[in-house]
Amino acid sequence: MEHQQLSAANIGISDDIQWLSQFGASASGGVTRLLYTKEWMDAQLAVKKKMEAFGLETAFDDVGNVFGRLNGTESPDEVILTGSHIDTVIDGGKYDGAFGVLAGMLAIRHLHETCGRPKKTLEAVSLCEEEGSRFPITYWGSGNITGAFSLSDAETPKDASGISLREAMRQNGFGAGRYPAPLRTDIKAFLEIHIEQGQTLERSGKDIGIVTGIAGQRRYTVTLDGECNHAGTTSMKWRKDPLAAGSSIIHELMLSAERQPEELRLTCGKMTVEPNMANVIPGRIQFSVDIRHPEEDVLAAFHQKLVSIVENISRSKGVRPVIDEYMRIEPVQMNQTLTRTAAEAAKEQGADPEKIVSGAGHDAQMLGRTFPACMLFVPSRGGISHSPLEFTPAHQLETGVLTLANVLHKLAY
Amino acid sequence: MEHQQLSAANIGISDDIQWLSQFGASASGGVTRLLYTKEWMDAQLAVKKKMEAFGLETAFDDVGNVFGRLNGTESPDEVILTGSHIDTVIDGGKYDGAFGVLAGMLAIRHLHETCGRPKKTLEAVSLCEEEGSRFPITYWGSGNITGAFSLSDAETPKDASGISLREAMRQNGFGAGRYPAPLRTDIKAFLEIHIEQGQTLERSGKDIGIVTGIAGQRRYTVTLDGECNHAGTTSMKWRKDPLAAGSSIIHELMLSAERQPEELRLTCGKMTVEPNMANVIPGRIQFSVDIRHPEEDVLAAFHQKLVSIVENISRSKGVRPVIDEYMRIEPVQMNQTLTRTAAEAAKEQGADPEKIVSGAGHDAQMLGRTFPACMLFVPSRGGISHSPLEFTPAHQLETGVLTLANVLHKLAY
Repeated sequence: MEHQQLSAANIGISDDIQWLSQFGASASGGVTRLLYTKEWMDAQLAVKKKMEAFGLETAFDDVGNVFGRLNGTESPDEVILTGSHIDTVIDGGKYDGAFGVLAGMLAIRHLHETCGRPKKTLEAVSLCEEEGSRFPITYWGSGNITGAFSLSDAETPKDASGISLREAMRQNGFGAGRYPAPLRTDIKAFLEIHIEQGQTLERSGKDIGIVTGIAGQRRYTVTLDGECNHAGTTSMKWRKDPLAAGSSIIHELMLSAERQPEELRLTCGKMTVEPNMANVIPGRIQFSVDIRHPEEDVLAAFHQKLVSIVENISRSKGVRPVIDEYMRIEPVQMNQTLTRTAAEAAKEQGADPEKIVSGAGHDAQMLGRTFPACMLFVPSRGGISHSPLEFTPAHQLETGVLTLANVLHKLAY
Repeated sequence: MEHQQLSAANIGISDDIQWLSQFGASASGGVTRLLYTKEWMDAQLAVKKKMEAFGLETAFDDVGNVFGRLNGTESPDEVILTGSHIDTVIDGGKYDGAFGVLAGMLAIRHLHETCGRPKKTLEAVSLCEEEGSRFPITYWGSGNITGAFSLSDAETPKDASGISLREAMRQNGFGAGRYPAPLRTDIKAFLEIHIEQGQTLERSGKDIGIVTGIAGQRRYTVTLDGECNHAGTTSMKWRKDPLAAGSSIIHELMLSAERQPEELRLTCGKMTVEPNMANVIPGRIQFSVDIRHPEEDVLAAFHQKLVSIVENISRSKGVRPVIDEYMRIEPVQMNQTLTRTAAEAAKEQGADPEKIVSGAGHDAQMLGRTFPACMLFVPSRGGISHSPLEFTPAHQLETGVLTLANVLHKLAY
């Protein structure tokens, strides 16, 4: 394929993003498509239909992932897969996930039209869950492809109204053997393109980011029990004030995080205070700690740091601490051969790609544990995501799709 | 009067506290008597009736304070006033306020029975508001006696259901000129006895506290506006995290408070975080700051300290601070002659009195700005107050009433 052929094309990605955003459109201009709801199923069926219009052979699997396939001429059993997800958070944006699904389909159509049939099989995919907004489970779609999850994991998770994941699947005809089992072994590479959800590209003025790894996450709830008391009559030296202790802990954690490598992210985003009255020394506080880094060793070391800061300060302030680690997701490195190929493709597209560690989770994190995987980022204005305000200009979306097409070309033709 | 006569008496204060607690009794064993409610009015009328049974001449004033008077034989126009309040917080205890009202009545009856008529007039009072639990105004009863408030101040304050203070007064027959105006100029001394609401007496093992001054209070709401963002994708160095800034501010304030004189009390009791999600850097937090000290200079200096800590840390963390001072109550010193008299009386009662600065507000704080005033404290178990768990053993209550009677004797006989 001539590079000029790709760069000259007008892919029309902006129109398709606008088109898909009608499914589950919210009053605020955002989108709400929770897994296995009518809005989500309508969108997934619309994507399937569009794949067919693009000349792809389509199929659901038994969890609800939908694939659009362009068979390879030489090694049809070797699949280069690309896509993302169309489920959203409540009142999310038009770009998160959706862009990657549509970009994959458009890139394959464009390659087909421009370069004919590939040697290896190209598949676009709309994965059936990534956000975990309806059920307390993330990467359900991609996890069933890798074998990290199986249908038996669908019994326990329930949504806010008590409907189980299994029941929600049944309502859409999934999970009953009507479609092929989702587990796959034929995937030779997975490529996902996504808005950055951060400001690295915007600040550096670059159009394409190449993800080298996706950070691991640990999340904790820290509870500090002290002694509720009268604000006026209790001497400072007799207090067991959990908010004073918690403030010192967060202060110390932030100082400690600043001394760590740049990729470390530490967030205390949630705090509750009891009884939460201006003239009463609190009796108990709870706060969240979210730690992310692309290396497991750094996370493990910071875990120890957290424990020692919480314990030392609690002891000196006379409060009783409990640290509950309720989430641990290990980091994943992207495939180095693929990231090199992607960087080349981006340069051919005229973009000077920026290497980025993703602090947010993505389907490529799950698929990348089993298959060679790679991610491309396009800028997102102000780094805003999960909001109706998500926005990426059309020319940057186009550059993204064309870069993705170029990578697919290098892998499949 | 012989001191033996007083110390030998069994005043019966515990029974009367139990009796009064039936008015507005709550399911949890506490008491709820909000100003001008039926529960409060029933209790105030019951107090009036008991004053009459004690041989006192009773009268309401036009805000609802009720007085029980024992006229002096030589200087009837010189009044020694003693009492407290019977309004409570929601689900408060049996002792706060009520003890002082009943102790005053019982002490006067006891003096009358033991020593006959005083030279100066003795008056017991049940003041009509101290807590400010129903309306956003405190010391309404005592403030109308001193002239700090007048009936025209009753138009604005409204309770949670929108009823104005004025309307609530009308519902009970007050504020319409049916009773004498509350303003007084004939008070030569005011004495209030109260549970400590702190642990000073309990820790020192003493039965009587003599209040030397009541701390001034300043209350603030500090708002910090930052930038809400993704916990995983936003570099630590680009964050404008108001919870990180607020934690450093509270940490610094507490360090600063520890370097101040022992009487300083600094409390951050309330905090709200927006949007309050574990994986989102907060956009805004608000927290309360409550500062108390018996000297205005110390409060003014700490105010400056607060402003500079908030501004410096906010600047370095990139958040925008607003400090709203929504309450300022000046400290008041108790009358030194009266505190000496009270200390003498306590020693005669066999108590080794402890000098205490009250960190809590009391009616004596309002009355003490205009008239010579003095307060006695009895211990309160665990320093607990504003709770059904309030408790003071009978023998300590008795010692309190007898000490109060002894002070009244020194002043009026």
